[in-house]
Amino acid sequence: MDKDLDTELFGIGQYDDFHTIDWQRDIARDRNRHRSIVRRKKESLLESFRSKHDAWAGWLCVSLVGILAGNVAGVIDIGAGWMKDLKDGICPEAFYLNREQCCWSSNDTVLENYNCAQWKTWPQLLGIARASGFGYSFVSYIIYILWSVFFSGLAALLVQTFAPYACGSGIPEIKTILSGFIIRGYLGKWTLIIKSICLMLVTASGLSLGKEGPLVHVSCCIGNFISHWPCFSKYGKNEAKKREILSAASAAGVSVAFGAPIGGVLFSLEEVSYYFPLKTLWRSFFCALIAAFVLRGINPFGNEHLVKFYVDYTRPWVLFELIPFIFLGICGGVIGTLFIRANIRWCKHRKESKLGQYPIAEVLVVALVTAMLSFPNEFTRMDSSDLIRILFSQCGIADASDLCDYKRNFTNVNKKLSNNAEAGPGVYKSIYLLVLALIFKLVITVFTFGIKIPTGLFIPSMCMGAILGRVVGIVMEQIAFQYPKLWIFGGACSTGINCMTPGIYAMVGAAACLGGVTRMTVSLVVIMFELTGSVNFIVPLMSAVMASKWVGDALGKEGIYDAHINLNGYPFLDSKEEFSYTTLAADCMKPLRNDPPLVLLTQDSMTVDDLDSLLRNSHHNGYPVVVSRESQYLVGFVLRKDLQIALISAKRTTELYENTRVFFSGNTDIFPGGDGIPQPLNLKRIVDFAPITITDQTPMETVIDMFRKLGLRQVLVTHNGRLLGIITKKDVLRHIKQLSNEDPDSVLFN
Amino acid sequence: MDKDLDTELFGIGQYDDFHTIDWQRDIARDRNRHRSIVRRKKESLLESFRSKHDAWAGWLCVSLVGILAGNVAGVIDIGAGWMKDLKDGICPEAFYLNREQCCWSSNDTVLENYNCAQWKTWPQLLGIARASGFGYSFVSYIIYILWSVFFSGLAALLVQTFAPYACGSGIPEIKTILSGFIIRGYLGKWTLIIKSICLMLVTASGLSLGKEGPLVHVSCCIGNFISHWPCFSKYGKNEAKKREILSAASAAGVSVAFGAPIGGVLFSLEEVSYYFPLKTLWRSFFCALIAAFVLRGINPFGNEHLVKFYVDYTRPWVLFELIPFIFLGICGGVIGTLFIRANIRWCKHRKESKLGQYPIAEVLVVALVTAMLSFPNEFTRMDSSDLIRILFSQCGIADASDLCDYKRNFTNVNKKLSNNAEAGPGVYKSIYLLVLALIFKLVITVFTFGIKIPTGLFIPSMCMGAILGRVVGIVMEQIAFQYPKLWIFGGACSTGINCMTPGIYAMVGAAACLGGVTRMTVSLVVIMFELTGSVNFIVPLMSAVMASKWVGDALGKEGIYDAHINLNGYPFLDSKEEFSYTTLAADCMKPLRNDPPLVLLTQDSMTVDDLDSLLRNSHHNGYPVVVSRESQYLVGFVLRKDLQIALISAKRTTELYENTRVFFSGNTDIFPGGDGIPQPLNLKRIVDFAPITITDQTPMETVIDMFRKLGLRQVLVTHNGRLLGIITKKDVLRHIKQLSNEDPDSVLFN
Repeated sequence: MDKDLDTELFGIGQYDDFHTIDWQRDIARDRNRHRSIVRRKKESLLESFRSKHDAWAGWLCVSLVGILAGNVAGVIDIGAGWMKDLKDGICPEAFYLNREQCCWSSNDTVLENYNCAQWKTWPQLLGIARASGFGYSFVSYIIYILWSVFFSGLAALLVQTFAPYACGSGIPEIKTILSGFIIRGYLGKWTLIIKSICLMLVTASGLSLGKEGPLVHVSCCIGNFISHWPCFSKYGKNEAKKREILSAASAAGVSVAFGAPIGGVLFSLEEVSYYFPLKTLWRSFFCALIAAFVLRGINPFGNEHLVKFYVDYTRPWVLFELIPFIFLGICGGVIGTLFIRANIRWCKHRKESKLGQYPIAEVLVVALVTAMLSFPNEFTRMDSSDLIRILFSQCGIADASDLCDYKRNFTNVNKKLSNNAEAGPGVYKSIYLLVLALIFKLVITVFTFGIKIPTGLFIPSMCMGAILGRVVGIVMEQIAFQYPKLWIFGGACSTGINCMTPGIYAMVGAAACLGGVTRMTVSLVVIMFELTGSVNFIVPLMSAVMASKWVGDALGKEGIYDAHINLNGYPFLDSKEEFSYTTLAADCMKPLRNDPPLVLLTQDSMTVDDLDSLLRNSHHNGYPVVVSRESQYLVGFVLRKDLQIALISAKRTTELYENTRVFFSGNTDIFPGGDGIPQPLNLKRIVDFAPITITDQTPMETVIDMFRKLGLRQVLVTHNGRLLGIITKKDVLRHIKQLSNEDPDSVLFN
Repeated sequence: MDKDLDTELFGIGQYDDFHTIDWQRDIARDRNRHRSIVRRKKESLLESFRSKHDAWAGWLCVSLVGILAGNVAGVIDIGAGWMKDLKDGICPEAFYLNREQCCWSSNDTVLENYNCAQWKTWPQLLGIARASGFGYSFVSYIIYILWSVFFSGLAALLVQTFAPYACGSGIPEIKTILSGFIIRGYLGKWTLIIKSICLMLVTASGLSLGKEGPLVHVSCCIGNFISHWPCFSKYGKNEAKKREILSAASAAGVSVAFGAPIGGVLFSLEEVSYYFPLKTLWRSFFCALIAAFVLRGINPFGNEHLVKFYVDYTRPWVLFELIPFIFLGICGGVIGTLFIRANIRWCKHRKESKLGQYPIAEVLVVALVTAMLSFPNEFTRMDSSDLIRILFSQCGIADASDLCDYKRNFTNVNKKLSNNAEAGPGVYKSIYLLVLALIFKLVITVFTFGIKIPTGLFIPSMCMGAILGRVVGIVMEQIAFQYPKLWIFGGACSTGINCMTPGIYAMVGAAACLGGVTRMTVSLVVIMFELTGSVNFIVPLMSAVMASKWVGDALGKEGIYDAHINLNGYPFLDSKEEFSYTTLAADCMKPLRNDPPLVLLTQDSMTVDDLDSLLRNSHHNGYPVVVSRESQYLVGFVLRKDLQIALISAKRTTELYENTRVFFSGNTDIFPGGDGIPQPLNLKRIVDFAPITITDQTPMETVIDMFRKLGLRQVLVTHNGRLLGIITKKDVLRHIKQLSNEDPDSVLFN
């Protein structure tokens, strides 16, 4: 490939929508660009500066992505917090303050649950006093429902009108994009703006969804936006390089979503990214660090700790507790798999039935049902994040909530206070409400994930797991209280101090359930301990997550993201799944027997007219070049786009006749032209003389391995040096689908 | 390849010493094995059990590796602790107890520094009372030196006599082995036993080295040992699969070394492993978990916390402190690079001069010098791990050591005690001693790392960084004490409480220095916070580590392990370095112009005699098969070893004549034999009909990428379908060396 071709013929290196990219080619293009910059480094001061800029552009770009991602996340957090409180009431003196900020200006010293005089609830504004009981509650209920439906309806309308790609969690699509697929507009500016606004709306609406997954999408949009700045053209104009920035951006997304920079990097590595060289690891690390740091500066959580669900468990765990922890892992795996199956079935139904035609109506119905059912139960009424925080926390001595209604003995002051105590009626009532909340969340999230607004899954899954964990934890705690001397507790409970803490179970349960849904492992554990700030519980967390993954994988191979990729037919060549068939390249390639023969170019025997008709009559993305039609020994490969552009530009600059010979090889001297025969056209520079080739006897597993690891777009199949056929990524995906008895035409691809 | 060939011809799939493995081939062999097991699953109960076992063998194997690694690490920790105290004295009532355990049985309530009546120091045993001042100290000094020299001399002798591979840290070699190289015996049983014993000895000897790196080697030996059990033949008999277990084992090694399971997995991923599919990630995770869990059961650190250097910093950091943190990062990068350069120069000198012939003498001299110089300074006399713990910790109020000699005001009881205080003379004395210790450690470690006993670098590097960090921290603390109202502290120091903590600086400095030496990033930060249990300091740690890496990379590209790989000429194809030259495959392949032509097989025109002479006269590892000597169209590839074995077995079972034709392709019917012409021999089954081929115009960067990502042993180079030459991994490595103006013959290879 001629290295100046890019500038010469505009448009080379670009891909059409829904096409797959050729990593090798793009990386090679970038290396050429880099070399030419290095070569010219000493020519002038400008060139020297350009070379410096080129070396630091990657770091600069990810820093900007980190800064912007941190800021956007901060704005979303603050906005969502304000809107959430808007459902309850308003600060008449300064409407832009949320309840907490509103009460800061108050002089009330008792700020229990931030109910102060400055803050007016809607019934109060309507003139209904708190004391009026049922009337007050009922009006609150109605206003809650109205706001919920309004917020989610508005979000659905915005998505529908301005940015249809802004819906969903976006992670399946980002996985597909990072694996080398083009979806134009998916990471566009409008998607960024609308998704950010809608995230505030939907988080505030009280629907059973989280904003953590969509923040990854938002962050990738930021990455895409910044990489298209002129000073980062190295990334903006090279799809393979751009994906390095996107990998870093997705790390930043998780970093700001959970305040977990290292978890973000690992999430990007384990779950999202496809091509992840070590350089990208370091950049992602840096990007996630900056993003977390900026967000810390904004401090939207408003607490001193950097972590979202800070816990401070004072006691270690005993060996016996591994049994309930693993039990929680198993439950997490089962719940996760159940959820995935139900959700996929419902999404399939939506796709196939008329339901898909009324996205806004669907959102409104889901919002209405959610609001109606969630308000009566205090655990579902509150924000999921708040619920998780409460479930994770230990019961303090002064804690007056139902969940902490223990019959503690306060009479003996000198006796060290027992952590363990008999549960009071409030605890039993809480268990009942929590079980109801679990069932409600599980059912409603199945219907919520996939509607046409931004919907994340992390928080709902963690919430389900935390509820389950807390319930199991309370049960364990009561067993330990009743039988403190059982040998299984290893003496830890005999003193009554430092025995079972239900909060730990909630934490483990949350990890297990999230693991069951997403099938993450290492990154999940790291996220959990960055989220809670407790390093001492790695072994319980790891055990539960492993159990959850094993059980989940035994019940159904795919995590939720892979299942959605499959459902939508994205051309994603999974690097986790093993290909277990014994087919050969010859079984997968085109043309198979009975197919029309391959459209070929010959290196020195075609005319301009031949090429024109070939381009008219075929629509392949590229054509192999062979020595001659008879021998079919392979010479190289030409992309359709390059051929079209080269012909157009040749027609513009030189005189071409229909019978002008076109050469695709070096040795033009064998046919020099002249004497009435027109001067031949040499298109050697557009030929890729190093196409990746395999033999027809290559096992398909090797072929798939090459596609995955080298990021190929196509390979050419030869036998004893002769060209037999071609295998594209689409052929591979269709072949896999065919072998696993699925419909091969469900793959979305051009 | 015929799938039953393995069993038929023993020895296929094995490699010679110092050879490189062919991942694609090994993985393909394993898939065939797996398929045949799955196929026979329903034949009998035994086969069904075998299939179940096959599915779980990987998990079972890594569990066993984890259990054994945890136990071995526990034994080493306990043994090293006992020997360390042996330098000081003995417990006459029960010689097998260390000082701490010895004192447990005592009834003394004051156990300051574990000096109790039960424990007898050597001078006491010799009848010299503590009170006798100089005499007591001098005898202690002499005995300390004698023990040190004895321990290290014994270790050197053991290594020299029984297991020469047990020396060094082992990480460079393990990186090379995991990248697909065979070093027989490097992971053998003797290496395991001797290295474990020597680790106790050298740790106790007080040399400036750590046992953390070598524990990775020990753990890999365990992995190798267990994978050779008959029930895990899947791993033991397949070098590519075995490396999956070794990756997991190296994660377990770090996990037990630092009590950092997640850090271990990331270390394995970032630093050690080459081929790391997600399945290996999960297995490594599990293996590290088990190992950490077993070690926790043994509890060699003897404290309640799971982490080695538990810290409990109560105050957050202020933005301004990022400046000293980044300064520490820069210092870490500079110290690391200085250390690497000096150490490599010394090791080169050792290799080239006569010094290398007296390994035991060298160890004795280093031990003697270390012991003589380290005893007088209390900070170098104590164990490096203990020093790190002290440097990391905050000064308590009752702390009487010199390092904590602050002029605190205890008169006003009601006033909240100020954390900040003016440093007393003890602190200044400590700074002086710490600076001396830093210089001493830096110099002596240069000479220690590389001597012929097990030597790790983690602890010495961290120790240097911690000293530097603590000194900088004390300086910052005193600035903050003198000028508490400076705007840069943002009001954090105006109250005098919760201001600078020198311990945090020590932690950051340790990470920076370790980062400078090893050039790790993400894994290092994770290890640091698993090691200290503090999640709140991710941003300072990350900033320092990034700064350290940038500065280090600017001063010298290689980390210590890569530098040692290069020094020893191991054939390691680094996946981090970018290949920046524009050469093509044609420039690297053999034969180049003027070389003798390639040794070839033809598919149907060779006789047994031809093959015999070909095997006699050439020593390549494999031979390409072509259609005919004239056309040279490529058919396949045959390994030398396979050809030898196939000929021998054919000679044993059938009648072969010198002129018997040998076919390497399917169509034997063109030459059926009979009528006096001997029956031809068909060796089709040993031909690999799917060799990886490239064209001569392929850029070398693509070729290197293929070698790295596909784990190739060789590629065949073609032009228009004709075979031109062959590129082996050795050719690639020599080519890289040549281009960077190094001696291409320094690559160790067969």
